[in-house]
Amino acid sequence: MEIPVIRNILEVNTKLATKLKDKFSNFAVFNIISAPGAGKTTLLEKTLEALSSEFKIAVIEGDIQTNNDAKRIAKLGVPVVQINTDGGCHLDSNMITDALSALDLKELDFLFIENVGNLVCPAEFDCGEDYIVAVLGATEGDDKPEKYPLLFHKAGVMLINKVDLLPYVNFNVEMASKHAQKLNSSLPIFKVSCSTNEGLNDWFLWLKNCLISKRSKLSQLKTSVMV
Amino acid sequence: MEIPVIRNILEVNTKLATKLKDKFSNFAVFNIISAPGAGKTTLLEKTLEALSSEFKIAVIEGDIQTNNDAKRIAKLGVPVVQINTDGGCHLDSNMITDALSALDLKELDFLFIENVGNLVCPAEFDCGEDYIVAVLGATEGDDKPEKYPLLFHKAGVMLINKVDLLPYVNFNVEMASKHAQKLNSSLPIFKVSCSTNEGLNDWFLWLKNCLISKRSKLSQLKTSVMV
Repeated sequence: MEIPVIRNILEVNTKLATKLKDKFSNFAVFNIISAPGAGKTTLLEKTLEALSSEFKIAVIEGDIQTNNDAKRIAKLGVPVVQINTDGGCHLDSNMITDALSALDLKELDFLFIENVGNLVCPAEFDCGEDYIVAVLGATEGDDKPEKYPLLFHKAGVMLINKVDLLPYVNFNVEMASKHAQKLNSSLPIFKVSCSTNEGLNDWFLWLKNCLISKRSKLSQLKTSVMV
Repeated sequence: MEIPVIRNILEVNTKLATKLKDKFSNFAVFNIISAPGAGKTTLLEKTLEALSSEFKIAVIEGDIQTNNDAKRIAKLGVPVVQINTDGGCHLDSNMITDALSALDLKELDFLFIENVGNLVCPAEFDCGEDYIVAVLGATEGDDKPEKYPLLFHKAGVMLINKVDLLPYVNFNVEMASKHAQKLNSSLPIFKVSCSTNEGLNDWFLWLKNCLISKRSKLSQLKTSVMV
């Protein structure tokens, strides 16, 4: 009984995600997924601090309850919408569509979606993003890509966060990277710490390159249509 | 469309859980739930090392993929069954019923169920347990009880694990405890470290008291039926 219903929900979501991708054609969209407490909001804060003077950015915050994370983002002067799923374990394209009505997408460069903290369900639901950002805390164990394969298989980039804590925990960076790249051979991996700022510049550069690459493809497409 | 289907799944699960509780009448059952990497398996290893010479124990391991955790438990000479959910985000009573066929429940004292690493969905599905054990890693942030309220509301006990890492992270034990006890005023909370063994003896004692208390109620019930 359960399986066909779930398949139907996923199909409806994928159709809506396709419509979202049309709306997102001129800016780069990142869907940030991790376990609870891996540091998604702190990563976003650091990213906005670094990029928001140069780029126009908006944020969608997904949480089961509270708007604590949205308050943290709003303090940085960046437009933010909070989605409360009220028990729901993931964001979907329908929720993103609703949230967009509160955001000005004109001349936007980056849209960041912070999903509900969960390594499982959010990976199933396309939110129209260009890239899934998988964040793995170094305190969570190097076996997580192997144990939660769908997220790491679909991810466009993986961040190993909290590397400042590596001396105190039993986490093998090579093992985690090897397991993730077995699922996804071309996966870029950045080792970062949002406490010490280690590795964050490479992440910012990667984000900028994603935007340049997307706009360059769009411009080629427009040129070829005109020719 | 979605809500009635989900409600129906939960009702079927609750009926099955009631049948499980009958089967579990003579031993104590714990459903361990946490985010990925909070230390559930290591906590189980420590618990089995401490209690398995004195008590008869069995374990059910839930994971999306791999049987790595079951192998770790089997090394300790304790009967263990691995459930692979193949993408599913939680265990339910149907899976537990299937797993029981591979376990000898006669003269059992403790059954531990290690759920899929996820703070959201596992809290929805009763697996017939006497107590939900909510494990929160000190590296995950003190805001988690407030942000994932259902688990902490339903929990029979909360363990704050990895307290050996408290000097290196921004985690306020009082704040986490306050948020959890706002949802669940009588919630016992143990601060433990499975690396240094800090606090584990209190946890073992609590487990033994749960078993004594359950058997004492059962014996009173039998006596009153006889009278």
